[in-house]
Amino acid sequence: MTVAVIPIPGLPMIEPGAPLATLLADAIDDARVGVKAQDVVVVCQKVVSKAEGAVVRLSDVTPSELAERLAAQTEGKDARAVEVVLRQTKRVVRNDRGHLIVETKHGWVCANAGVDESNGIADGIVTLLPDDADASAERLRGSLADRFGVSLAVVITDTFGRPWREGLVEVAIGCAGMEPLLDLRGRADLQGRTLHHTVVALADEVAAAAGLVMEKDSRVAAAIVRGIRYTPGATGAAAGLVRRSEFDLFR
Amino acid sequence: MTVAVIPIPGLPMIEPGAPLATLLADAIDDARVGVKAQDVVVVCQKVVSKAEGAVVRLSDVTPSELAERLAAQTEGKDARAVEVVLRQTKRVVRNDRGHLIVETKHGWVCANAGVDESNGIADGIVTLLPDDADASAERLRGSLADRFGVSLAVVITDTFGRPWREGLVEVAIGCAGMEPLLDLRGRADLQGRTLHHTVVALADEVAAAAGLVMEKDSRVAAAIVRGIRYTPGATGAAAGLVRRSEFDLFR
Repeated sequence: MTVAVIPIPGLPMIEPGAPLATLLADAIDDARVGVKAQDVVVVCQKVVSKAEGAVVRLSDVTPSELAERLAAQTEGKDARAVEVVLRQTKRVVRNDRGHLIVETKHGWVCANAGVDESNGIADGIVTLLPDDADASAERLRGSLADRFGVSLAVVITDTFGRPWREGLVEVAIGCAGMEPLLDLRGRADLQGRTLHHTVVALADEVAAAAGLVMEKDSRVAAAIVRGIRYTPGATGAAAGLVRRSEFDLFR
Repeated sequence: MTVAVIPIPGLPMIEPGAPLATLLADAIDDARVGVKAQDVVVVCQKVVSKAEGAVVRLSDVTPSELAERLAAQTEGKDARAVEVVLRQTKRVVRNDRGHLIVETKHGWVCANAGVDESNGIADGIVTLLPDDADASAERLRGSLADRFGVSLAVVITDTFGRPWREGLVEVAIGCAGMEPLLDLRGRADLQGRTLHHTVVALADEVAAAAGLVMEKDSRVAAAIVRGIRYTPGATGAAAGLVRRSEFDLFR
């Protein structure tokens, strides 16, 4: 079945407290694409964070000595922004060549703890990752399901780098209404052999597909991915994408 | 613009020496979806490897002592298959808890050097990654462009795990006809600020999107991704996705 990745433009600039579910539903209406049962509505993290007020005004931040020292190692990083990063950090994974790769308090390993200064953030304001992006996704899912009268899933994405590979990709940091992992273990492959290792990061593939229409220099902050097969899933889903430390070879 | 991810089923079992470009074009014809200018035709690595004869019969392999020892550390790994992995390896990145993560001679960091025993590989035969997947992609691109009379791109994918995240995703290991990285540096974001760090791994997002329709327990080994914006690019493209060692924090 063909999968459609449908851009949803038209979200206004989001301010703290904005009714994101309503604005998103209106944007979907304006795009005249509707919502069909089993659709996955994808929203980028930044609009979620801004609507939830997960933003910090740098003028309110006093950097620690460590933040000052780390900022001094990079070209032009603001020590206050580094301080915000450190407050979101559970563990520093790499601190090298001007990069700060950390494990966030949520468990994600990414640059700068997902703290973002660019793209729609007014000067002097940075966004944090949503405090609980799975719960954010679940709230959006509930509102959109009510509004459109169908079952659907929601994925919240952010833009992450990866070790060993150039370039950034969209990944899932919040998920509701679908299992983020598609477990094919035990199913037969083409030869009738049993698959032993194949667990697909479905929510990440959905996020990357949505990334094809949510370009960073465009005004598209949301998308609908239509036509995929998924298992309707529980809340708290994307947390399952965090590799548990006992299985983590790169800790 | 909506992006369509169109499954191309119907590729027969591929034997060494099979005319893959012709078989793929026939499968596209049978799917009655045509090829449009700027389409990206995505093919999974395994059919490319098999067509190119990048396969090894385990009965022809004598494992080294190291391969024997490594196999003994895992449950049920065949020492001859481990030997094949080592022969594809430039550097062992992790050898822990039964996993062998290596840098391949091509520069990819992945489990088992991409050597694969499952899904369409007859018992006792393993596939290697194509010797030069960019060149493989270029050959397919040229043949398909001739057959359909349009300009197009080709991406060859494999299924990789990632540090810190559960589950596997499709990534690009070969690319022709498009730049694999979409460089947005210097463009303005929503606020008119200049983007400094945003280089998108477009070919990897295309691969992941195609992964939504090329499921591991299905017979779909190819897909068309239609409707994305890309820069027509050079041959030798996916090699640009390999992070150069001087920029690699995780070496």
